[in-house]
Amino acid sequence: MARLGRRTSQAITIQTVAERAGVSAMTVSNVLNNSPRVRQATRDTVMAAVRELNYVPNMAARALASASATRIGLLYRNIENAFLSSILVGALDATSRLGAQLLLRPLESGDPKEIAQQMQGLVESGAHAILIVPPYCEVANRHGLTRDFPVPVVAMSPGDILPGDHMVRIDDFGAARDMTAYLIGLGHRSIGFIRGGAGHMIHRTRCEGYQAALRDAGLPIRPDLIVTGDMSFESGLAVGAQLLDLPDRPTAIFASNDDMAAAIISLAHRRGLDVPGDLSVAGFDDTPIAVKIWPSLTTVKHPGKDISAQAAMLAVSLARGDQEGMAAPTEHYLEHRLVVRESTAMLGQADQKR
Amino acid sequence: MARLGRRTSQAITIQTVAERAGVSAMTVSNVLNNSPRVRQATRDTVMAAVRELNYVPNMAARALASASATRIGLLYRNIENAFLSSILVGALDATSRLGAQLLLRPLESGDPKEIAQQMQGLVESGAHAILIVPPYCEVANRHGLTRDFPVPVVAMSPGDILPGDHMVRIDDFGAARDMTAYLIGLGHRSIGFIRGGAGHMIHRTRCEGYQAALRDAGLPIRPDLIVTGDMSFESGLAVGAQLLDLPDRPTAIFASNDDMAAAIISLAHRRGLDVPGDLSVAGFDDTPIAVKIWPSLTTVKHPGKDISAQAAMLAVSLARGDQEGMAAPTEHYLEHRLVVRESTAMLGQADQKR
Repeated sequence: MARLGRRTSQAITIQTVAERAGVSAMTVSNVLNNSPRVRQATRDTVMAAVRELNYVPNMAARALASASATRIGLLYRNIENAFLSSILVGALDATSRLGAQLLLRPLESGDPKEIAQQMQGLVESGAHAILIVPPYCEVANRHGLTRDFPVPVVAMSPGDILPGDHMVRIDDFGAARDMTAYLIGLGHRSIGFIRGGAGHMIHRTRCEGYQAALRDAGLPIRPDLIVTGDMSFESGLAVGAQLLDLPDRPTAIFASNDDMAAAIISLAHRRGLDVPGDLSVAGFDDTPIAVKIWPSLTTVKHPGKDISAQAAMLAVSLARGDQEGMAAPTEHYLEHRLVVRESTAMLGQADQKR
Repeated sequence: MARLGRRTSQAITIQTVAERAGVSAMTVSNVLNNSPRVRQATRDTVMAAVRELNYVPNMAARALASASATRIGLLYRNIENAFLSSILVGALDATSRLGAQLLLRPLESGDPKEIAQQMQGLVESGAHAILIVPPYCEVANRHGLTRDFPVPVVAMSPGDILPGDHMVRIDDFGAARDMTAYLIGLGHRSIGFIRGGAGHMIHRTRCEGYQAALRDAGLPIRPDLIVTGDMSFESGLAVGAQLLDLPDRPTAIFASNDDMAAAIISLAHRRGLDVPGDLSVAGFDDTPIAVKIWPSLTTVKHPGKDISAQAAMLAVSLARGDQEGMAAPTEHYLEHRLVVRESTAMLGQADQKR
């Protein structure tokens, strides 16, 4: 071990320097790390001891030690959104538990060029695998950014299958079909649907699930009952009003996320409509707001935290080369389920719910 | 530059290796980074070229380059809480904008021993300054963990002044006094208060602000009107019921966060009380839920994202030694303000608000 002639500097520790300078080891560390908390006189004393002892702080060794940790890159955006926040929580928790270092990169615009740059930047920062939040994992796939990429990429909760990519998701189509079937089972025949996220896969898959359930029940698909928001509460207010203004308004409204469903409930209050007596309302995602509004919201449990935790575990595993024969991308599904609360009721029998 | 005899290896680039092996530079990079995506035959070819050319990947240089970046440690917990999530967003945005690397450490229990360990762990991972979320910045201060700590520590939004620490916060006392004074100005004389976060400074400071406003107006402080939740929606339901069950229930309730205030509004709906006609309700923090419930919530704007962004900027500045004479800890205040929405009204004149 000593053949490279480093014996002398290896024998001198930070403690030796501290004793020579007559200060604490912490002070020596502060000086070596250029902490501005140290007075100049102290700094001079410590540096004199460092020179005298020919002490070489083992910076490169430290840097290389940290370089050996598994590093997982995460491209994220818009974490103030409750669902995306749960995605971030799961990834933070899992990488921390697995002893991997998480390199976070925010997206400003989320356009393909920026995504490509940030993916490349993460590799240059030493990422061994990359996680991408929805819907940017879809954008990356659609523009071929993940094809032949130097490190494995795992898509978190895309709205549909991404050919060629590793992904962890729920079955958005099936979940929307199940919720619609539940509303039909309650006796509703006129069910409004609020799409959201134009350009995202859920915009299509969740609406297709709604339509499939109507078809399965032999009910017509009425274009006037399908409106499009942008996933925000405000957009739910705007397009929800269109549904409630219809001459024969729907008796139930299913929104493709909880915020837009909360907006419908708020609109109903304003118009003096009783939820669920006059109108049943259902959401999607089961974000915290679902239990904080009145009445509490029937919704689809979309386990964002579990999805991202599993995606992070997969990324770490791929980064460490634990997976044999990596050639084929893997699809992982988590279960969705309906969470029935107070905002939905059998048509005409709302009072029994209270 | 060549005196260390590294000229040969410096002249050989990853591109040279790629040309010799007849593969792309990306493939060489994959092999050197041990990407499991590379087939064994390709790996053998590339490694043969590496040996032949005596190519030394400049790992240490790369590690040292990344070691020269400013690294900011962040101790966090419970980011599913809307206010703490906004704190995280601000810190992520600001460090990214400033080109600093953020090292995130989750707290499991948040007890002083764990905080001390994680603070030390962050320094060992190379953090040049540390940010701590509330209320753990208060715990660290109270237990002397920040005193003489090797790197600067910045407290994010503590509920009161932390002697000896850098901090960025609002005036919690003043904000609670202002909101209470506003309710008094609307004619309310019987105002309930929901404390929260026992053991946190806001538990005391926000309640003191409420009491100060009552005293300023010559109103009595009635102990039966002060109840204690734990900041959760569920606790708001429980202790809110105590207030509404009083023989002469309050005409207004001020909760020390938005979730507990939302619970009061939910309780009022259940009991057939009109908000704000029969009961005015106010919250604290202005988290997203404030505009998603009906009626929308009057609350105190507590700018978590701006607070943490400013704290991150301060930490980066301290880490880089930009601040002269660092001796004195610095206190930074951001403005709070009242956001008046639909949940509060002049006593007996609610209809004018609609």
